[in-house]
Amino acid sequence: MTEDGVADSAGDFARRFGEDVPDQLRESKLPQACRRIVSRGCVRRYRAEPVSDDLLTALLACAQSAPTKSNLQQYSILVLSESAKRKRLAGLIPTMPWAAEAPVFLVFLGDIRRGRLVAQMRGYEHRNDNVDTFMNAAIDAALAMQCFIDAAEAAGLGCCPISMIRNELDGLAELLDLPSGVFPIAGLAAGWPDQEPRISIRLPPSVVIHRDRYDDSDLAKQIDAYDERVFAVAPIPPERQRHVDRYGVAERGIWSENVARQLSVAERDDFRDWLRRQGISLD
Amino acid sequence: MTEDGVADSAGDFARRFGEDVPDQLRESKLPQACRRIVSRGCVRRYRAEPVSDDLLTALLACAQSAPTKSNLQQYSILVLSESAKRKRLAGLIPTMPWAAEAPVFLVFLGDIRRGRLVAQMRGYEHRNDNVDTFMNAAIDAALAMQCFIDAAEAAGLGCCPISMIRNELDGLAELLDLPSGVFPIAGLAAGWPDQEPRISIRLPPSVVIHRDRYDDSDLAKQIDAYDERVFAVAPIPPERQRHVDRYGVAERGIWSENVARQLSVAERDDFRDWLRRQGISLD
Repeated sequence: MTEDGVADSAGDFARRFGEDVPDQLRESKLPQACRRIVSRGCVRRYRAEPVSDDLLTALLACAQSAPTKSNLQQYSILVLSESAKRKRLAGLIPTMPWAAEAPVFLVFLGDIRRGRLVAQMRGYEHRNDNVDTFMNAAIDAALAMQCFIDAAEAAGLGCCPISMIRNELDGLAELLDLPSGVFPIAGLAAGWPDQEPRISIRLPPSVVIHRDRYDDSDLAKQIDAYDERVFAVAPIPPERQRHVDRYGVAERGIWSENVARQLSVAERDDFRDWLRRQGISLD
Repeated sequence: MTEDGVADSAGDFARRFGEDVPDQLRESKLPQACRRIVSRGCVRRYRAEPVSDDLLTALLACAQSAPTKSNLQQYSILVLSESAKRKRLAGLIPTMPWAAEAPVFLVFLGDIRRGRLVAQMRGYEHRNDNVDTFMNAAIDAALAMQCFIDAAEAAGLGCCPISMIRNELDGLAELLDLPSGVFPIAGLAAGWPDQEPRISIRLPPSVVIHRDRYDDSDLAKQIDAYDERVFAVAPIPPERQRHVDRYGVAERGIWSENVARQLSVAERDDFRDWLRRQGISLD
């Protein structure tokens, strides 16, 4: 297997990290097979053309090919097709009608229930109602979701994860008949793309990737530079700024200001209580 | 974009789900571009040949191309190369010396710290020290890990996630200088493969995939059939059975027996306390 570098790695990286590509990346050669991945992005607009059951079934088999902790497979995937249920879904994510109407809508679920039942079937007591198992289940579901996204994008589809489905947990649990021990991590809208993927500019590798020890001593400077790179390509317009009602429109729509605002207001603070009611105590 | 079915879908699915492939999959055509994904599996033996810095840098850029919740990017990736640190890592995962010696070893980290610092930089108070944010960070890290795995496998590398690094949390945090708000989700060993990937047979889609509502009413029967499919290909030998000291060697090394045994003993029950000490209260 060779590292077949391609001429336009610099262009791919510039779209992902901004024009002022960090030096290390500027010299790095991206294998041809990875170009699709580094150029990926969410797609929110789909053609009306349906995704065949056949293809969906194959892609879900790909999702099941993701690694899973100890092969415990502590997740489930729910395919939401029924039109009456789709309408109710739209009511749960009112600001995202396009997602509720996507040709494919999946819900990825952490699933502790199945392990409990398997333990019971074999005459053992399940003793892992703890944060470790909760995290394992969430991670299993996330790995499966990313594997689905990867397979779907390889097949030419576009996708967009929807964490907003967790805003109305009781409504969602009722809609999907989620039993005790099962919790949503995200929805996923998918379909044949009717737009170019939106490539989000990411934090530079120097912020996210650490060598041998965690070190963010240079963070403030790096964040300022990142803000400028994002702002140059995609300044955050007033209507997409967080909590404008509380803080007003930001002078400049930069990433860090928006993140700071978003994190300054508790989001889904009731999730732990809901999990407890859903039979996941996290003790 | 067309769905270019390939002749040997049935063979690919049989390796993933066992010879008795569910009907639906038997008729499903896997797009050529997805064959690699459905045939993937962990690789635990690597050639001595190093993975170039150049390639690793490119693959990490791919990892950063995974979706992340609200573009918050609440994760970090640590590349562990220093030989003295690798030796200490080996001490933390004593049953996996091959992983500690892999050409590449990464640690994927949930990272709530960065958001706290960004909020501070912009003069806001971070108010999301809750289970929702903890899960978002774990999921962001998992999506990045799966995207790395996908890119690495596309480039010809083999990988294996190592959740066992979480068995010695204090030791790991000290080794990697993990600050408050940063927690490991998994390690990842990678290198040029010196063995065929091991394809784990997965639960049938009828168990993992739900249509319109969660329904596992047929679970017991499906698990029994799955046990037999796995047992036919890869019965679990005594040395890989869980808690033999406590329960003895199982009469038959079937998946459900092993899962039930594993889940009957609390694993990493101290994770929540450790997170609290690590500045993540989960309240």
